[in-house]
Amino acid sequence: MGNVYDTDPELRSLVNYFDDLANQTPTFDSFIDLKDESPDLDTACLKFEIRDDFIGNRIYRTLHGGLISAVLDTAGGAAVFFGLFKKIKGKPREIQIKRVSKNATVDLRIDYLRPGKGKEFTATAKVLRIGNKVAVTRMELHNEEDVLIAVGTGTYAIG
Amino acid sequence: MGNVYDTDPELRSLVNYFDDLANQTPTFDSFIDLKDESPDLDTACLKFEIRDDFIGNRIYRTLHGGLISAVLDTAGGAAVFFGLFKKIKGKPREIQIKRVSKNATVDLRIDYLRPGKGKEFTATAKVLRIGNKVAVTRMELHNEEDVLIAVGTGTYAIG
Amino acid sequence: MGNVYDTDPELRSLVNYFDDLANQTPTFDSFIDLKDESPDLDTACLKFEIRDDFIGNRIYRTLHGGLISAVLDTAGGAAVFFGLFKKIKGKPREIQIKRVSKNATVDLRIDYLRPGKGKEFTATAKVLRIGNKVAVTRMELHNEEDVLIAVGTGTYAIG
Amino acid sequence: MGNVYDTDPELRSLVNYFDDLANQTPTFDSFIDLKDESPDLDTACLKFEIRDDFIGNRIYRTLHGGLISAVLDTAGGAAVFFGLFKKIKGKPREIQIKRVSKNATVDLRIDYLRPGKGKEFTATAKVLRIGNKVAVTRMELHNEEDVLIAVGTGTYAIG
Repeated sequence: MGNVYDTDPELRSLVNYFDDLANQTPTFDSFIDLKDESPDLDTACLKFEIRDDFIGNRIYRTLHGGLISAVLDTAGGAAVFFGLFKKIKGKPREIQIKRVSKNATVDLRIDYLRPGKGKEFTATAKVLRIGNKVAVTRMELHNEEDVLIAVGTGTYAIG
Repeated sequence: MGNVYDTDPELRSLVNYFDDLANQTPTFDSFIDLKDESPDLDTACLKFEIRDDFIGNRIYRTLHGGLISAVLDTAGGAAVFFGLFKKIKGKPREIQIKRVSKNATVDLRIDYLRPGKGKEFTATAKVLRIGNKVAVTRMELHNEEDVLIAVGTGTYAIG
Repeated sequence: MGNVYDTDPELRSLVNYFDDLANQTPTFDSFIDLKDESPDLDTACLKFEIRDDFIGNRIYRTLHGGLISAVLDTAGGAAVFFGLFKKIKGKPREIQIKRVSKNATVDLRIDYLRPGKGKEFTATAKVLRIGNKVAVTRMELHNEEDVLIAVGTGTYAIG
Repeated sequence: MGNVYDTDPELRSLVNYFDDLANQTPTFDSFIDLKDESPDLDTACLKFEIRDDFIGNRIYRTLHGGLISAVLDTAGGAAVFFGLFKKIKGKPREIQIKRVSKNATVDLRIDYLRPGKGKEFTATAKVLRIGNKVAVTRMELHNEEDVLIAVGTGTYAIG
């Protein structure tokens, strides 16, 4: 199954612009290194595999809560980016870059439901509302056996 | 100025026990590598310096929101650990380890107030209430110029 | 369509016990006066109609945010009650009363997505996880045209 | 001790404008009927006494969680109003009314720390940050013996 980037070259090109910037210096996002497998502009879907430096509890080999919140925040932000992209599709690149560059998380709630056990994890996010000033998203984290590990809600400022 | 570990050998010894475990394999906490400068058992105080892999926005060189939430979660957890330690001071080591090993974040709210600009950052946390089942903490993140960058509230399950 | 109370006499009887207590003195719940139309034990569903004393903004005649949070908190609590009832079904009444009497909201997040316009409103809630100490629920408020007005997440202590 | 309305006639006059509107039809705010004893523009301070229709738990005569969240939301909104008033002081009345009329709660977190026992309760709120789009506040609820019953954090959209 393809993802949204395969079917939308304009989105692919806009994201490439930011990826090129990102590749110049590694950052926290480079450390986490999520794989974007979003199926369409309605659902952000980010995947990652377990790694030692993602572990919180060494004995149970479960994901660190901080890593979970970072991933869910990123997924919510990706959903907001998709929501904005729908509004600016077809506009000049400069306007697109300006609009999506200023998004920022205003606040975030994470609920840790079950221990983060597993090999591969999938964070999904959907926009509940996107206005002129703020957007609100709901996020979920599942492992490869579809166990719901954590959920989140985020409020994002729109640039 | 000394910190709480210099003045309380029993706390130092209990923490060493967990640090020794932690040193065996690097985890997400090893990656973040916070410096504990808590002044007493009423305030957890964790410090860290800016690093490339903590950066969210490459252009403004500001902290990643996910890193901020991870740090504030850790600070809240440390405050709960101190609150529990007050209750189990003087008890046998096995009981102490059992009590503090089972703490887990239930939920977390982070409010991103201002861009995470700065060189050195300080996360502080205080317990608002510690009961038999859950504890609630409030956290704050300041930079070296005492600018309030983010606040948080956490609910933690008590082991 | 019937609701869960029609199909489960044991639940009906347990709820009647609390309703009888409640009828002795009016409280905040009497003021709000929600109609319980929960279809089964997996979904709490509470309904109410617009009233002057539910209004927040007089000009737009929209629900008060405080009323919305009170309703969503109540819906989350009802979902936790159902979740507990599943576990204690068939046990002696005294044990049932003891178990469900001690539930209490630990914390609550409410997201106000759209103005609370409408005639009749429906709050729904589902349990995301119910453990021995805490339960977590997600709640939604819709109007009669199925517009999503607010969502919430609640953490509840289990008695 | 006087309050901020005694010392600032411009604020008094602006608030009277809204109070006159409010007196035309009773709303949820009329039901709750908080007394504003804010000492200055930096701290919103709202008081109320216990009443039967504020009760959640009839046996312990404690405040309903929904009432608590409604009061803390109102206190946070009042703090945002004060923060905005500082910015628009001296401007024409029409501009002032326009600016403060559009505030709305975006999201709210309430932490219920201790049972709401007492005779008289005080909700206080302070602005953590007020920007062009959103403001963030922290709120607290104490009883007459200064017991901390609940805390909250709110994000508000600025008109």
